[in-house]
Amino acid sequence: MTGVKRDRRRLLRAAVASGVGGGLAAASSPARAEQGRQPMDAKERTPDEGGVRVAVLLYDGFTALDAVGPYEVLCRVPGVTVTMVAEKPGPVRTDTGELGLIAERSLSSVRTADVLLVPGGGDRGVMAVMGNSVVLDWIRRIHRGSVWTTSVCTGSLILGAAGLLRGLPATTYWASRSYLAEVGAVYTPGRFVETGKIITAAGVSAGIDMALLLTSRLTDVEVAQAMQLAVEYDPDPPFDTGSPEKASPELQRLALRLIADSAR
Amino acid sequence: MTGVKRDRRRLLRAAVASGVGGGLAAASSPARAEQGRQPMDAKERTPDEGGVRVAVLLYDGFTALDAVGPYEVLCRVPGVTVTMVAEKPGPVRTDTGELGLIAERSLSSVRTADVLLVPGGGDRGVMAVMGNSVVLDWIRRIHRGSVWTTSVCTGSLILGAAGLLRGLPATTYWASRSYLAEVGAVYTPGRFVETGKIITAAGVSAGIDMALLLTSRLTDVEVAQAMQLAVEYDPDPPFDTGSPEKASPELQRLALRLIADSAR
Repeated sequence: MTGVKRDRRRLLRAAVASGVGGGLAAASSPARAEQGRQPMDAKERTPDEGGVRVAVLLYDGFTALDAVGPYEVLCRVPGVTVTMVAEKPGPVRTDTGELGLIAERSLSSVRTADVLLVPGGGDRGVMAVMGNSVVLDWIRRIHRGSVWTTSVCTGSLILGAAGLLRGLPATTYWASRSYLAEVGAVYTPGRFVETGKIITAAGVSAGIDMALLLTSRLTDVEVAQAMQLAVEYDPDPPFDTGSPEKASPELQRLALRLIADSAR
Repeated sequence: MTGVKRDRRRLLRAAVASGVGGGLAAASSPARAEQGRQPMDAKERTPDEGGVRVAVLLYDGFTALDAVGPYEVLCRVPGVTVTMVAEKPGPVRTDTGELGLIAERSLSSVRTADVLLVPGGGDRGVMAVMGNSVVLDWIRRIHRGSVWTTSVCTGSLILGAAGLLRGLPATTYWASRSYLAEVGAVYTPGRFVETGKIITAAGVSAGIDMALLLTSRLTDVEVAQAMQLAVEYDPDPPFDTGSPEKASPELQRLALRLIADSAR
């Protein structure tokens, strides 16, 4: 990371800390104010440095929870604004076609962002984006100026197609791990994998875990822990088959069949 | 539950089992076919009994993950169709205002559903629905014919306002537990609470856990376990503060402050 990038990261962290200052002062011990959490002088910031701008890429056939899990964690972090972005503003359909989310902004109107988040999607949707030079160019441009570049599920294959993962450790959807090598990345086990300013998360629901880590990086552990409570993320699934290491080959085949049968 | 309701539940379960038959036959041992999983005779079904229709109520100020978590689990279950429903079709904004989901159908056009799911939302949004007789009438009508009536987070307060929880055990968002008594329900600890055909889930992300249980009820444990793998729900949050029992009073206050500050 360049010195400029490091400075920008510190600036953002301070800006967010400033935003939450009142809340923390009210909620925490008076000692906290002595620990160096000082509001920034607003004069130090340019207008667009007033907060953290998170851009979530939507595309036809994305997976809803990949985008909405992180949105739900990040949207309440002080100073953070989450914006759904797509080639064209308006409704974007998910991989099953049953749900549409609104993209607020077009790619061409969003030239910079502090955090880029690329969700995964169905095979058809992801492969279309991996071959879409307009979207890949946009991803590369946003990445050049980003403080964090992140993905959920097969979103990492899209980052890879944009050339951002060459030689880097990364993760993806469990059934797509072997494809990481094809975009030059090194599959690395983990609910999320952090390398420099890039964080890739495992499949679908892993975006929630990743967003909690990202929140701690953008602010501090206390705010991230508060956000975990805010979304009552105290998981207690009735089964324990959430990774291929915990599921039989038969169950893996059934899962893949259910996904294939539900795809548009 | 009446005999008619029990019959309808069995019918749905058989219809869904029929839908997944090919997948299970391919994925499981041949012995399964002898265990009574026989496709239903289509002549036994009326046209609208061809599958399970899940209606998710959207309203201004709902919480996105409350709706999208269960959607992501249920939308790939064979034979299940998930439809977002609101007073008017079109975009519905979330509690932070930063995100819009598309409602496909109006309340007046959806007169029956097999599964009703009511998400929670911000205080303003939930209180508005609790005082909206059109929405509450619709909830009561759908509930009369439903096989399952479910809620996530403060959605249980809406079910309660519709008079569906009188004297019944239920759960809700951690910070809203005391309000359950005001709608006649009995707060009961649990990631989700099942009573008759009603299942209430705890806050926000608990809808994912609840939807896995619901999937097992609509189909069987094998399909539910496959769906857990399909959304790679193998939670591993970087912190462990997802319930008030695990969070300090200071952290609870900070969480509530972040929620209040992010509300529209």
